[in-house]
Amino acid sequence: MDLPASHAIDPLARPAVVLLSGGLDSAVTLAWMVSRGFRCVALSFDYGQRHRHELACAARVAAATGAVEHRVARIDLGAFGGSALTAAVPVPKDRDVEHAHDIPVTYVPARNAVFLTMAMGLAETLHARDLAIGVNALDYSGYPDCRPEFVQAFERLANLGTKAGVEAAARGEAWFRVHAPLQTMTKAQIVRLGAQLRVDFGLTSSCYDPAPDGRPCGHCDACLLRAKGFAEAGARDPVTR
Amino acid sequence: MDLPASHAIDPLARPAVVLLSGGLDSAVTLAWMVSRGFRCVALSFDYGQRHRHELACAARVAAATGAVEHRVARIDLGAFGGSALTAAVPVPKDRDVEHAHDIPVTYVPARNAVFLTMAMGLAETLHARDLAIGVNALDYSGYPDCRPEFVQAFERLANLGTKAGVEAAARGEAWFRVHAPLQTMTKAQIVRLGAQLRVDFGLTSSCYDPAPDGRPCGHCDACLLRAKGFAEAGARDPVTR
Repeated sequence: MDLPASHAIDPLARPAVVLLSGGLDSAVTLAWMVSRGFRCVALSFDYGQRHRHELACAARVAAATGAVEHRVARIDLGAFGGSALTAAVPVPKDRDVEHAHDIPVTYVPARNAVFLTMAMGLAETLHARDLAIGVNALDYSGYPDCRPEFVQAFERLANLGTKAGVEAAARGEAWFRVHAPLQTMTKAQIVRLGAQLRVDFGLTSSCYDPAPDGRPCGHCDACLLRAKGFAEAGARDPVTR
Repeated sequence: MDLPASHAIDPLARPAVVLLSGGLDSAVTLAWMVSRGFRCVALSFDYGQRHRHELACAARVAAATGAVEHRVARIDLGAFGGSALTAAVPVPKDRDVEHAHDIPVTYVPARNAVFLTMAMGLAETLHARDLAIGVNALDYSGYPDCRPEFVQAFERLANLGTKAGVEAAARGEAWFRVHAPLQTMTKAQIVRLGAQLRVDFGLTSSCYDPAPDGRPCGHCDACLLRAKGFAEAGARDPVTR
């Protein structure tokens, strides 16, 4: 699928804030929003994650995928501890990710809620009404803040808790819409959509526990799910160990 | 009203996270939660506010009011601009606060949503199910994120979007409860409640635009509402210009 060439540069396109971690899912989400004609501001967070390599990836993905701007906001999630992604808890390796349906220790308390509320605040100052997040079917089998009902509850909160939302409600409209285009997709479907949208997978980083040079560990849940997704899509992952 | 002496030191009391700005409303909210027997962790934010003096006040209020701990989390709300409290927009002075029902320029996009989601994340790591916020009737005539429907929508989001919420739902329970004890109170009623709870008003700071030494400007909305509240309660404000 060819992307309309005008999108990344059309100053009149509808603005959107897209959460971008630098991983596969958010890269495909950004590409999807760009392909739908949004003028996308990508938003990443420096939240004390141990896989900070993803922030460098996010910057490269934002530029390559046609975001008009990339912002990084610092927040103190690490101060709360409680997750293998921010605290001194080991990242689990070689789990049976296909059959694990517990909430993993890589769950970060309140992460998506904080990310979405920050995106909502940025959107309000940009007069944007569209937000996008790359949550998907695999995530929501494990992470409560990736489930469709969470995304819907957030949309409701955003429309009640903002000046833009209240002013739109007075006109009988809903202001914010949260796009979650991957919501029902498997990793293989996401890889196929990304290929269609010409996402440069080589720029993305999914690993929870990469080497100092950014190379993936190959054994954490994120690496295993990514490998499985590429295998099932019959595609080669340019990011290898 | 005497506070039960045991509350601040009972290690078995139910933990709660109380949002504490260092102003009058959050100080009274903290005192109320302590008086109800909660073991309160006070949470403040360094969000690039121009009235950073309030953070020093928050630390003193937390200690004097019986919080077991005071945490300050840094977040980048200022990076988004858009408010007189964080950006280079003048703080309005000498407004007719009694009859102003527009959303003031001191509104910070997404502020309470971000604060509550951060409180929710901290609560989850502390195994606390109670959150408290000092929103009240005066605020919610102006700020959308102080309205009861916002607080209710947030409670719903918290119970859907967290591991603790999902696990409690599986047992047929709601995990998080957001306490907003001042929700229907006027400023005068808040002053009276604070006096009953023996809040040391002299430690609090309400001004949006204080002098470098912390003295209030006396003319911003927050100063005018505070003065009106003390006057109507027939009480003397120990914090004067």
